[in-house]
Amino acid sequence: MMSQGEHHDLVGTLTGGTWTKPTCPCCTSLNVEPLVLMQLAENVDPVTKKWIISRLEAPVRDGGAQLLVHSGEDDIGNVVVLSAPRCTQLHVTEGLGICKPYKDGNMTPFSYHDRNNFSNVDDMQVFLTLAERQYVVKYQLNFVRAKKDRTIPGVPESRGVLFARESLFRKLEKLGIVKAVIALHDQQKLGALAQAWYAKGQLLGQPLDSIQAYFGSSVAFYFSFLDFYTWALVPPALLGVALMLLPMLRRMAGGINTREGPEEGEPSISGLAVQAVFNMLWSTMVMELWKRRTASLTYQWGTMQLTEHYAEPRPGYHGPPGCNPVTGRPEACFPDWQRQLRVALVSVPVVGFFLVLVALGMASFYYCEALAKNFYTSYDSWLMTPVLYLPSVAHIVYGNMLGTLYNNVAQALSEWENHRDESSYQNYHTTKVLVFNFFNSFAVLFHIAFVKQDLPLLRKRLASLLIITQLVNQCSEVVIPFLVDRFFSSSANKPKEDDPEEDQLRAQGRLPAFPGLFPEYLELLVQYGYLSLFSCVYPLTALLLLINNITEIRTDAFKICRLFRKPFSAPASDIGVWQYAFEILGFVSVVSNCWLLLFSPGVNQLMQETGFSSHGALIFAIMLEHVLILVKMIVAFVIPDEPDWISLKKQQIEFRSVQALKQQKRR
Amino acid sequence: MMSQGEHHDLVGTLTGGTWTKPTCPCCTSLNVEPLVLMQLAENVDPVTKKWIISRLEAPVRDGGAQLLVHSGEDDIGNVVVLSAPRCTQLHVTEGLGICKPYKDGNMTPFSYHDRNNFSNVDDMQVFLTLAERQYVVKYQLNFVRAKKDRTIPGVPESRGVLFARESLFRKLEKLGIVKAVIALHDQQKLGALAQAWYAKGQLLGQPLDSIQAYFGSSVAFYFSFLDFYTWALVPPALLGVALMLLPMLRRMAGGINTREGPEEGEPSISGLAVQAVFNMLWSTMVMELWKRRTASLTYQWGTMQLTEHYAEPRPGYHGPPGCNPVTGRPEACFPDWQRQLRVALVSVPVVGFFLVLVALGMASFYYCEALAKNFYTSYDSWLMTPVLYLPSVAHIVYGNMLGTLYNNVAQALSEWENHRDESSYQNYHTTKVLVFNFFNSFAVLFHIAFVKQDLPLLRKRLASLLIITQLVNQCSEVVIPFLVDRFFSSSANKPKEDDPEEDQLRAQGRLPAFPGLFPEYLELLVQYGYLSLFSCVYPLTALLLLINNITEIRTDAFKICRLFRKPFSAPASDIGVWQYAFEILGFVSVVSNCWLLLFSPGVNQLMQETGFSSHGALIFAIMLEHVLILVKMIVAFVIPDEPDWISLKKQQIEFRSVQALKQQKRR
Repeated sequence: MMSQGEHHDLVGTLTGGTWTKPTCPCCTSLNVEPLVLMQLAENVDPVTKKWIISRLEAPVRDGGAQLLVHSGEDDIGNVVVLSAPRCTQLHVTEGLGICKPYKDGNMTPFSYHDRNNFSNVDDMQVFLTLAERQYVVKYQLNFVRAKKDRTIPGVPESRGVLFARESLFRKLEKLGIVKAVIALHDQQKLGALAQAWYAKGQLLGQPLDSIQAYFGSSVAFYFSFLDFYTWALVPPALLGVALMLLPMLRRMAGGINTREGPEEGEPSISGLAVQAVFNMLWSTMVMELWKRRTASLTYQWGTMQLTEHYAEPRPGYHGPPGCNPVTGRPEACFPDWQRQLRVALVSVPVVGFFLVLVALGMASFYYCEALAKNFYTSYDSWLMTPVLYLPSVAHIVYGNMLGTLYNNVAQALSEWENHRDESSYQNYHTTKVLVFNFFNSFAVLFHIAFVKQDLPLLRKRLASLLIITQLVNQCSEVVIPFLVDRFFSSSANKPKEDDPEEDQLRAQGRLPAFPGLFPEYLELLVQYGYLSLFSCVYPLTALLLLINNITEIRTDAFKICRLFRKPFSAPASDIGVWQYAFEILGFVSVVSNCWLLLFSPGVNQLMQETGFSSHGALIFAIMLEHVLILVKMIVAFVIPDEPDWISLKKQQIEFRSVQALKQQKRR
Repeated sequence: MMSQGEHHDLVGTLTGGTWTKPTCPCCTSLNVEPLVLMQLAENVDPVTKKWIISRLEAPVRDGGAQLLVHSGEDDIGNVVVLSAPRCTQLHVTEGLGICKPYKDGNMTPFSYHDRNNFSNVDDMQVFLTLAERQYVVKYQLNFVRAKKDRTIPGVPESRGVLFARESLFRKLEKLGIVKAVIALHDQQKLGALAQAWYAKGQLLGQPLDSIQAYFGSSVAFYFSFLDFYTWALVPPALLGVALMLLPMLRRMAGGINTREGPEEGEPSISGLAVQAVFNMLWSTMVMELWKRRTASLTYQWGTMQLTEHYAEPRPGYHGPPGCNPVTGRPEACFPDWQRQLRVALVSVPVVGFFLVLVALGMASFYYCEALAKNFYTSYDSWLMTPVLYLPSVAHIVYGNMLGTLYNNVAQALSEWENHRDESSYQNYHTTKVLVFNFFNSFAVLFHIAFVKQDLPLLRKRLASLLIITQLVNQCSEVVIPFLVDRFFSSSANKPKEDDPEEDQLRAQGRLPAFPGLFPEYLELLVQYGYLSLFSCVYPLTALLLLINNITEIRTDAFKICRLFRKPFSAPASDIGVWQYAFEILGFVSVVSNCWLLLFSPGVNQLMQETGFSSHGALIFAIMLEHVLILVKMIVAFVIPDEPDWISLKKQQIEFRSVQALKQQKRR
């Protein structure tokens, strides 16, 4: 943590203009920390800017955001720097249900009323993390809603009226008056974090707590998961290598083996069976242990008792004005059944339609490929070679276009479903994009494995996919960023620690927005899919993924630290819908592995040799599948989802709140 | 509800001796309602009786039960009548977390501190149900624990010392000083309940709320489930009849049909498939809708927020003295991991061992039967006929002996696992007995269906099992009870309303103890098993079960009202482990139905006719199974487990307690 002195120096450099004087005595402080930068349109009317600032400064009871505002260089410029006074910080912390260390050492949901019993409550720099302080500002911005229909000063009525209970900042963004709201980097902390994280070239461990403090818990959860998953890859990688080496060693030892062994590079049947069973147990254990790890992290990071459902709705949420039936506060009321109807009658069919389009694309690709081959063989001229590539090219173009279209449609649908909570919106949106991408990535592999039943082709495809994915990743995530970074440095766009603060702020505004964690999680999920669904045909998968992930950690860290704006990060208590995606994949993998085992050439050969009927083998595969799924469910049931000490802490909090409710006399 | 006046009359008849005078002014009342009868040993030392009464009367802060005690006819008799003063009633209600109507009309966890805001809090007869008032007395009895090692007055030290924190009443029961603790019937209320329930001969509906008020929520949950399940049988019964009639009608209409139809009584393939799919959807819907019904009932009956985990542990719970880590109250501390170890290393293997014994018994039965047949055919004399029955008789005797032995072992194991909460003890015990009984009931049928694959035999077995079960049930549950009742009436043992109250009490003591709801639930589960696992071979199952259950409701009602002591009933919020048992059966039934479909003679015939390979049919069956399970899981996921209005109420309570915790300043 930065000491007060250092911080004062930093703030001192913000010249011209002054910070809002807080009205509340406890919030008065020499040092105001610039947390968030609001970029306005170039041509913003000073009247509008002044009005916006007044809304930001106004106390919550008057419908304002109760923030500290600094109007940048001067009142005419298009930049506003924001911070939050202590009172606002503490009230929002309570409203979000964030836990903080109590005087008895336990993490306890913060209570403003009981604030003096929490540790370090006097020093906001220590009490809240940087990410939390910045999120508080963002939350307060979203909080500002019009009390009744009105116009915005300096904006003609023809361009737009602010309706009652509409989010002011969403409106300003729509009107193009607010260009961007940016969480500011703290170059000193960022430097220290980068040092501890990736700059020193250490390969083991990540400073997860510092990541959480600096980037917030949703980002920290991604890196924790990446870390956990990478370590979890060690056992299957070792097994894969062992299964690869064992037949070779055996062949070398007993060169005079008469019985024809499996082909070079093709694992033996017992190896396949071992891998299928191991895969099942491994994937179950990994997800169960990750749940326990999640529980510990949420406790540590104070996000164990988030009350998003009782906090303010997300800014995009709209509906007829009403009262929240739980909290009793005035807010838009959009009935649940209407949302469910929209999901069931529109979203699900639309997603299904796109999946059909993917399948159609694949089918026509196969059809055209066969046509092209016929054409090529019948003409047999080198001039006709391009024809052979035509279907692939067409398929790739089609796939990309469909993907882009789908992303826009999914975004619009999720927005239209009108979710109240940000996490619920994220989950529905992620699910949509996930299902499509997953289908897109695996449809071809499933087709090869279960329709064509061509295991050698599957092995080749998988190996090339793994190697190409890795090359593309390394290229796009290491080489290009490195070049971009060089380029940035030379163009003096990169923020430097000795620049005047305004320039630093402006430079941060020029960085591209953080693209979110979705592509990162999706990459992991697709990897995990290759590994758990098909790895028994290509045992080295885990090893390749392990190598990939060790570099992935550093490149992702570099990306988020240096190449993008600092993202706002809502407090999170898990990895959301990704948890379910990984678990579902675990179940699908049991089915997939059993069938792959059945189709493998080794098993076919064994069946012919032993005279075992294919009918018998099929029944055996089915029974194996059922037993493995049963074992998987029992293992998942037996391992508790959270460590005992966490359950105890939760029970203590629950007991205390039940007691508190009983002690309370209602008027 | 009984008016105050009537009640006074009833109490007035309790002659000789007096009730404890409550120390607390709010508890002083003219009318003390006799709730519980404690039967002591015939030869109990008056000193011991006096001491017991003093412990019962002593306030909680002095380690007593704070009850109202009436020493029966005189101080020497072996009967003690108990009641609870208002303060005790209210404190226990709060401790158990029972919800009661608040002044705003919502069910709210009762709070002693805020008691005056609850409706009817001044009249205990209205505020708490009879079952609740009686459970309060039972709970307080269990609550009495020794503060330090001591002897019991009138009991020589050689017979036993009461150890610190040992449950006094468990000890007295072990020593044989307390013979029984009996919840007293209220003949007037019982008469009214019987009238509304079964006496009038109405077939539709049960007075569930009155049952809950009189017998408590666990009994009421059983009858609600029975009711719900009986109604749920109507659609499959109709379908079964339709599937039975349709082929007959078709045969009658088109008598000149050339293609050979299925055998008489054997459903057609399309019928089988329809039934398999219908079964799957039906079982899922029933269990999901039952969950919703459970949620409504728990709200209505005030058991939505039970806090058993924070209340006193069950009397049998023991361990080194310590502090409850959540509530901070002194109590025995038996670590969870030790209990889990006992379950995993002892209970699970022992249960497994007994299942193996069942399987061995079945195997030797088949072996001996074959032997006996051989023997019979080789000797071929009528003298040898008994030999044919020998294996069956031996198997039945073995099965019964094994069952009895297992029940004792399961009881001892569950006790030894040392569960803290009564519900946890019940769940573990039920699971043990359930698994064994289920295996015992279905092993033979599964063997016939999937090993022998003899569907006609399965059909015969199922039909005879259903009809025999029904006959046995009707006999044991209607005819015998009726005769017993006559017999009771003639022997003047039956309590009559105009008897002096002491005689009534003594008469109730002579009734047999209520055997618990386990056999009743097990009967339903086995029924449900017949229906969902195998019904597609015998479509009339549902109809037979429907008829059975309609009478079952009345006979069960008669049994619990007239033939047994009134059971104590802990507040319950669901049907416990039975819910899971029914749900698991639902999944097993999908697998079972798909395979039965595959093995059915109709499908085999169709395959031969169409030239479809058995391999293809097998793959089709597997795919059908996977699709049906997927659909089942989606349906179960899509239907919310509780109605929206219940979720809202729960959220409101949760929000209020979170707020209350925040309002509280800890010292």
